[in-house]
Amino acid sequence: MSEFSHWNEEGRPKMVDISKKDDSKRTAVAQSTILIKKELYDAIRNAEIKKGDPLQVAQIAGIMAAKKTPDMIPMCHPIQIQGVDFNFEYQQVDNGYELIIQAKVTCKGNTGVEMEALTAVSVASLTFYDMCKAVDKSMIIKETFLLSKTGGKNGDYNASNI
Amino acid sequence: MSEFSHWNEEGRPKMVDISKKDDSKRTAVAQSTILIKKELYDAIRNAEIKKGDPLQVAQIAGIMAAKKTPDMIPMCHPIQIQGVDFNFEYQQVDNGYELIIQAKVTCKGNTGVEMEALTAVSVASLTFYDMCKAVDKSMIIKETFLLSKTGGKNGDYNASNI
Amino acid sequence: MSEFSHWNEEGRPKMVDISKKDDSKRTAVAQSTILIKKELYDAIRNAEIKKGDPLQVAQIAGIMAAKKTPDMIPMCHPIQIQGVDFNFEYQQVDNGYELIIQAKVTCKGNTGVEMEALTAVSVASLTFYDMCKAVDKSMIIKETFLLSKTGGKNGDYNASNI
Amino acid sequence: MSEFSHWNEEGRPKMVDISKKDDSKRTAVAQSTILIKKELYDAIRNAEIKKGDPLQVAQIAGIMAAKKTPDMIPMCHPIQIQGVDFNFEYQQVDNGYELIIQAKVTCKGNTGVEMEALTAVSVASLTFYDMCKAVDKSMIIKETFLLSKTGGKNGDYNASNI
Amino acid sequence: MSEFSHWNEEGRPKMVDISKKDDSKRTAVAQSTILIKKELYDAIRNAEIKKGDPLQVAQIAGIMAAKKTPDMIPMCHPIQIQGVDFNFEYQQVDNGYELIIQAKVTCKGNTGVEMEALTAVSVASLTFYDMCKAVDKSMIIKETFLLSKTGGKNGDYNASNI
Amino acid sequence: MSEFSHWNEEGRPKMVDISKKDDSKRTAVAQSTILIKKELYDAIRNAEIKKGDPLQVAQIAGIMAAKKTPDMIPMCHPIQIQGVDFNFEYQQVDNGYELIIQAKVTCKGNTGVEMEALTAVSVASLTFYDMCKAVDKSMIIKETFLLSKTGGKNGDYNASNI
Repeated sequence: MSEFSHWNEEGRPKMVDISKKDDSKRTAVAQSTILIKKELYDAIRNAEIKKGDPLQVAQIAGIMAAKKTPDMIPMCHPIQIQGVDFNFEYQQVDNGYELIIQAKVTCKGNTGVEMEALTAVSVASLTFYDMCKAVDKSMIIKETFLLSKTGGKNGDYNASNI
Repeated sequence: MSEFSHWNEEGRPKMVDISKKDDSKRTAVAQSTILIKKELYDAIRNAEIKKGDPLQVAQIAGIMAAKKTPDMIPMCHPIQIQGVDFNFEYQQVDNGYELIIQAKVTCKGNTGVEMEALTAVSVASLTFYDMCKAVDKSMIIKETFLLSKTGGKNGDYNASNI
Repeated sequence: MSEFSHWNEEGRPKMVDISKKDDSKRTAVAQSTILIKKELYDAIRNAEIKKGDPLQVAQIAGIMAAKKTPDMIPMCHPIQIQGVDFNFEYQQVDNGYELIIQAKVTCKGNTGVEMEALTAVSVASLTFYDMCKAVDKSMIIKETFLLSKTGGKNGDYNASNI
Repeated sequence: MSEFSHWNEEGRPKMVDISKKDDSKRTAVAQSTILIKKELYDAIRNAEIKKGDPLQVAQIAGIMAAKKTPDMIPMCHPIQIQGVDFNFEYQQVDNGYELIIQAKVTCKGNTGVEMEALTAVSVASLTFYDMCKAVDKSMIIKETFLLSKTGGKNGDYNASNI
Repeated sequence: MSEFSHWNEEGRPKMVDISKKDDSKRTAVAQSTILIKKELYDAIRNAEIKKGDPLQVAQIAGIMAAKKTPDMIPMCHPIQIQGVDFNFEYQQVDNGYELIIQAKVTCKGNTGVEMEALTAVSVASLTFYDMCKAVDKSMIIKETFLLSKTGGKNGDYNASNI
Repeated sequence: MSEFSHWNEEGRPKMVDISKKDDSKRTAVAQSTILIKKELYDAIRNAEIKKGDPLQVAQIAGIMAAKKTPDMIPMCHPIQIQGVDFNFEYQQVDNGYELIIQAKVTCKGNTGVEMEALTAVSVASLTFYDMCKAVDKSMIIKETFLLSKTGGKNGDYNASNI
């Protein structure tokens, strides 16, 4: 197990110096899931017909949030992300529907984009909640986690299964 | 079931006009949970002895994020939050530990602070992940949801159980 | 003609003290127009069929920009806007199409929301340009101006004609 | 005519992946024009004698806005701009004066700075409006457009004439 | 001596709940001083003749920073400042000149604006340093402190002497 | 003595074009000092026992502020800082204690990080003041200056003594 890298000698957090790390292409994919009632699902489907779609707003908010990551997560390095895309999928479950949200972030740099991908799906989830909370306040944002990453000296990572 | 309030007639999202709503004291409490391995839990405990603590950084990031909510969630109204506080608790579970994070946000205004509380716990969770990901990338942020709210014309809300 | 209110005695700009002004409900409507080629108009229409729409992104960006106005316009007071909505309309002209963008901003406060409305339409126009510039870089953002305002001690304002 | 690059397969906007594009030096020049009354022009001239100048505030706001572009325009990539400068020129016209505002932005990167230049002149125009609106609310921000760009694989661009 | 108000029971910082405090008009004045060499002072004076002035940029940056205070100082409450103004004065001293910078911030609210005034003068000082550092990197920003405050239940405050 | 680099020909400030400068590793160290009363020092020491520590919040705020530097200082170029760390030290003096705050910022780029280091210590000082002002409003932030820098074509710099 690796050691913590964010603490300085006095036990206070620092932004670790990454200036000796080399640039490489890196990607990260994160996933979040929202559990919604059938009534909300139906309402969204109807709204979609009228050309309105919470996923549109969620996706735009998620992309903008990926860019804000170093402004939100204190020890994150500023990086120049090169691309962000989203995938949304509804799945029927016993007690309603699950909306599965995935975001993929790409960069060329000397630090990874895990936090950017996780921030993107989290803010997309929160935005979806905000767009729909007038209909249902009981939505639950379920498992949010890193699905995979590539690039960097520590090699690739894939979440086994959950 | 209420109707969607964020869509204008053409089916595009708008920021709904709340100028006719009255000011009242409002609170919201949100909760998030992170599942961590025993090894990480032990590592944190040891780091704590050295006076460093991921919860410190998570709490500060969460408080700052509550203030940024209208900058992140597109249709959120800007409000002047009056207070933010956090509660953290570790619970032992079969496969390690769960860290339960709760944030309470208070305001006086004509719109609620649900999104502020949800954003606060989400960013606190993401920050905790960032502080500890060098040790364990497989952490899962579990149920994130609104625990309760008070104030406003729609009355109080309490999540029944999950 | 009124005198300038932003200059202090040494000739440097200041944020004027508005603490003696009373709160009132205020609205402002601003308008901007983008001149686009027929080819771009057709391309957008086709893209719309695929459920993508530059107006969606423009509207969301414009709403978020209205909230950022005091962060962009140096002497603007921070205010809590209460609502933002957009209206879009395409009109055929000799050399293609004109997209007319209008934004209405509402607040309760002691300073107006003209700059918020103007910033909203300007950023919506810029976003529309960004979404479509791969197809046509020669778009021109035409007249951007204040269409009307209500509230405040100076009374209502309506742009006569242009 | 090129195809749209901002839409993903489901018809929702994405930030396009530019990680395969090479870095090069790039510049972009944008222009905006404000139509002002003779009375305002004279008032500004007098204010300038007192060492105050709306152009100072407009220029500083425009430079700061160029840096904020990816925070305002949802699908814009974050880039590290290398330089921003402005040029202002008053021209007498039939019904008063025109203030012509030009901004030039420079970067080394794998995406252009058209949006940065357009954002810079737009925010400079809005700031000029804000500084002078106590004297004249009827100012009109006229043609805002990309004057020229250099660098990048699509080659240089020059607005023919308007 | 009062007790600390920012710590919660677990010893982690919180944003204290001020929702029970009443609104009142409040002001705060802060001061900072920069020690500069005679050569820099002369260079500024010459630049001033060319209509350029570090104080212009410093003042605008300071006003904008006052608005950003709750985004920078973690436990600060968001407030709607009502006015900001600056005063600058050069004084000759043995080893060159002192530039004395004062900022006054006004608000109507239930928390003070001390941090806004202190942030305003600090960022104005940093900006002055940035504008002039090509000429002299050895500038020292000297005493930065709260000169006075009015309003609020704790009464007025005046720095006795320094 | 070098000439000013921030002014364009008309005497208005610009962001100087650095696109011809080469990348190199750069560091900057800045220092600030806060003078506090013995009573406050003792109060902090006691609070530390309860695991709360103003230095924790100050350090996190300072790190986040370093990332915000180009958003605060108008003519600063956006750069991707690679690391930030802090050092704090209390020293007993005649009239109480001095808290000496040092921040070191690292980057690889074509412009220095002096402003980032100075902004980091300034915001850390302001945050310390905010955390403790309920106990003592008379704290004075004393000498803030650039201690040293390395990298860049102008060579290294060390503050001789103060």
